[in-house]
Amino acid sequence: MRAFARAACVVTLLASFVSGASGATDSPAVAAAREARAWRQTHERDILREFVALLAIPNVARDRSGIERNVTALAAMLEHRGLEVRVLRLVDAPPIVVADLRARGRARTIAFYAHYDGQPADTLSWNGLPWTPVLRDAAGHEQPLGVAGALDPESRLFARSSGDDKAPILAMLAALDAMRAAKRAPAFNLRLVFEGEEEAGSPHLGAYMELAPELLRPDAWLICDGPVHQSGRPLLGFGARGTTGVDLTVYGPVKGLHDGHYGNWVPNPISRLAHLLSSLRDDAGRVTIPGYLDAVVAPSEAERKAAAAIPDVEPTLRGEFQIGGVEGAGEALNEALLRPAINIRGFQSGNVGTRATNTIPTEARASIDFRLVPAQTPASVRAHLERHLRTLGWTLVDSEPDSATRVTHDRIVRLSWGAGYPPARTPLDAPFSLEVATVLGTIGRDPVRTPTLGGSVPMYLFEQPRGTPAIILPIANHDDNQHAPNENLRLQNLWDGIEVFAALFASLER
Amino acid sequence: MRAFARAACVVTLLASFVSGASGATDSPAVAAAREARAWRQTHERDILREFVALLAIPNVARDRSGIERNVTALAAMLEHRGLEVRVLRLVDAPPIVVADLRARGRARTIAFYAHYDGQPADTLSWNGLPWTPVLRDAAGHEQPLGVAGALDPESRLFARSSGDDKAPILAMLAALDAMRAAKRAPAFNLRLVFEGEEEAGSPHLGAYMELAPELLRPDAWLICDGPVHQSGRPLLGFGARGTTGVDLTVYGPVKGLHDGHYGNWVPNPISRLAHLLSSLRDDAGRVTIPGYLDAVVAPSEAERKAAAAIPDVEPTLRGEFQIGGVEGAGEALNEALLRPAINIRGFQSGNVGTRATNTIPTEARASIDFRLVPAQTPASVRAHLERHLRTLGWTLVDSEPDSATRVTHDRIVRLSWGAGYPPARTPLDAPFSLEVATVLGTIGRDPVRTPTLGGSVPMYLFEQPRGTPAIILPIANHDDNQHAPNENLRLQNLWDGIEVFAALFASLER
Repeated sequence: MRAFARAACVVTLLASFVSGASGATDSPAVAAAREARAWRQTHERDILREFVALLAIPNVARDRSGIERNVTALAAMLEHRGLEVRVLRLVDAPPIVVADLRARGRARTIAFYAHYDGQPADTLSWNGLPWTPVLRDAAGHEQPLGVAGALDPESRLFARSSGDDKAPILAMLAALDAMRAAKRAPAFNLRLVFEGEEEAGSPHLGAYMELAPELLRPDAWLICDGPVHQSGRPLLGFGARGTTGVDLTVYGPVKGLHDGHYGNWVPNPISRLAHLLSSLRDDAGRVTIPGYLDAVVAPSEAERKAAAAIPDVEPTLRGEFQIGGVEGAGEALNEALLRPAINIRGFQSGNVGTRATNTIPTEARASIDFRLVPAQTPASVRAHLERHLRTLGWTLVDSEPDSATRVTHDRIVRLSWGAGYPPARTPLDAPFSLEVATVLGTIGRDPVRTPTLGGSVPMYLFEQPRGTPAIILPIANHDDNQHAPNENLRLQNLWDGIEVFAALFASLER
Repeated sequence: MRAFARAACVVTLLASFVSGASGATDSPAVAAAREARAWRQTHERDILREFVALLAIPNVARDRSGIERNVTALAAMLEHRGLEVRVLRLVDAPPIVVADLRARGRARTIAFYAHYDGQPADTLSWNGLPWTPVLRDAAGHEQPLGVAGALDPESRLFARSSGDDKAPILAMLAALDAMRAAKRAPAFNLRLVFEGEEEAGSPHLGAYMELAPELLRPDAWLICDGPVHQSGRPLLGFGARGTTGVDLTVYGPVKGLHDGHYGNWVPNPISRLAHLLSSLRDDAGRVTIPGYLDAVVAPSEAERKAAAAIPDVEPTLRGEFQIGGVEGAGEALNEALLRPAINIRGFQSGNVGTRATNTIPTEARASIDFRLVPAQTPASVRAHLERHLRTLGWTLVDSEPDSATRVTHDRIVRLSWGAGYPPARTPLDAPFSLEVATVLGTIGRDPVRTPTLGGSVPMYLFEQPRGTPAIILPIANHDDNQHAPNENLRLQNLWDGIEVFAALFASLER
């Protein structure tokens, strides 16, 4: 690492000369982006090879064996490039990989965050396998991986985490490779921070930050996660919705019963759970839990205006998703994301289709995730939901009820709460916010600026101590099927990401 | 068959002498029951062996290979006992097996119905395998099958269709074996009729009856299906609820979407289906489809009284099922069964628990079966449901909607209707009704008489030409887990059934 830093320090002075085709007045951002493109164009197959190797390692947070293999691979990739790598470990938590590239004489440290874990994958629903990366052209035809030759930038690499969230990791490393080749050093102390349980709700990120503040309290954060705007333009996210989740189990008879002999008398758990869920939100998506919205702070005028200024891609999205209508009452997508959401992500009980049997099932299960906006917290969501269910006559339990409980309570629901965190917002006009947006504008990538992402990243942690700027900078295509089967990354998004990171690395010097 | 009939005819005159321990004044029913018991006590292992062999043959109606194996086995079992066997066949339908044992000089033909097909089985939910019969004692310990020695009558044979509905088939054949051993002939032309798609809704039974009226229009029917009363007493059912079923598919986006980025805007199909289902019935089981109950004829005073006279076993059932409350408003089980029921038998969408992902799923599916009472019909149920859904704004389709349909309709539900049939009732005071009840009383098995079973058998077909008496006579234990995993038959119920059939075969002479 040090050798690289020394060399880079000298070369910075010569940047405009070294970069050859550029004019002498090019800013470091423009020069670095141009150099990154040139380097990428001659190394696409190498980048892809390294990406495929990383994607082939299963990365579900609770699969510790797969997680450790990811950590080993990442550490090797970073050390190979001369970064100083530290693997932070807490018992029973996936490690955080921290890698530093110091810039001599610079006080400022900017951290770029990504996560190397991915969502669980329902293997049977994939066209292929989640951890067997496959390259397909725009028509869906599989393309050979281990060969030479040009790559179609519209082709896509299919694998779990190809978009969410290993793409930024590869793009950052390729940007560093390009800068090293151009003998250009970062303009600040660059820190890469790769988390391993973001998709599990980042339950230990706060503890890690408290235990290693010297590593995890930089001057500013760029959180590289999520997709760019659906228009294809780069996106800067100045906030994120918070999240929490709960699994509900409603109980019927202790064994499956013939519904002819007992229907109308033995309670049907599917019907009861359907009524329970229907009491949480109407089918236009509006929350109907009494008092639930009391914790919500209305978006500011500036946030509303920024949301309204985001390009309208709704007709395109409707066609792409093949939906004939939307939730809410005529609200725009970006306005809808300023509200809290209750998403039912699963419902399982009995069987359907040819597997259906005329049975009153023993239980019905649903899984819900909540998206939070200021000033909701996971605790306030939990309190509101639980109070609502008690008001409806439910008895709440947190483990499998025993016989005595079952026979003495008519409506029992088991709640299993997942981890969660609150929402966060960074002012659109904070100095760092303006600085980052300017760099992107300089290289011809004027960003869409959104007051909050609909999705969740644990942004509130990054903003500690209070006021630390944190901005979300995604690179993945919006239609990357993240969290779903057949997740994919469009290659051009990876190529663009490399240029964006090179420009930022080279220029955020203050 | 004829040789047996001739011999039996002679021996009938000598019955009271042959039966040894009996008094000379015993009725044929009492004598036949006593003889059946004695014969059974020395042949339990043989009966069990034959039962196990039949249960080992998979018998889901749509599995034609398994169905044919059942037919072959049944024909052999019946021919071995001298019955004249005819296998009725319609293209694409499981065969009906008809077997006759004629009584010389008797004009009356009484048919005993059972079905040899069984419900599909969710193999993973079984403690064992559905078509690998296992004998377990009352404590659940597996008992060896292929050995000699006494059998605990409280032990149970676990297999799909052990209760529903192969038990009556075995009991009838054992009753015939016992009568042959005692040289006692049936008092009427006995016909056994075994159907092969009852659990699929008997879609071809009517066609079979029209094509072979000489075989399928007897003077009276005993429909041997379902469980005895929960008190353990024999049960006669003078009616059955009708049935029909539908599968519903509600559509979300054409691919799974990150619910953070699109929640509140892209419709959630689980939420929509939950609301749809919640509009059909309240969670106390009362139907809330407007106009649905207009087709329902209120039960007669006699039916209400009969229902009220049925022994109260509800506290026992509540304990057995471990339920802390029941549907309806304080109604007794047997009163509740006089009403139509809407049972949601399955709901599937997305994933729950550790498999849950933060996705808006592409579709949500539910399966419903309806229990019908006079004068509902499958057509009236369908008309009411479809009108209700249209009123709620749903677009109804009967196949997978194409893109053009999806983008132009906000709420699309695909309906797949199954086969079905109307309810039926036979008067409690019809001559045949009184005759059968008297025989059971004579052998000390005074029956519980119920105006209607909660379950469904295609009884309306048996009552053609109108007025043909048809009575349901079950032998299985009420807690046999029929239609559910771990279906089982308590051995004492099989032993009792043999005596009941022997008494009826010997005495319904008119």
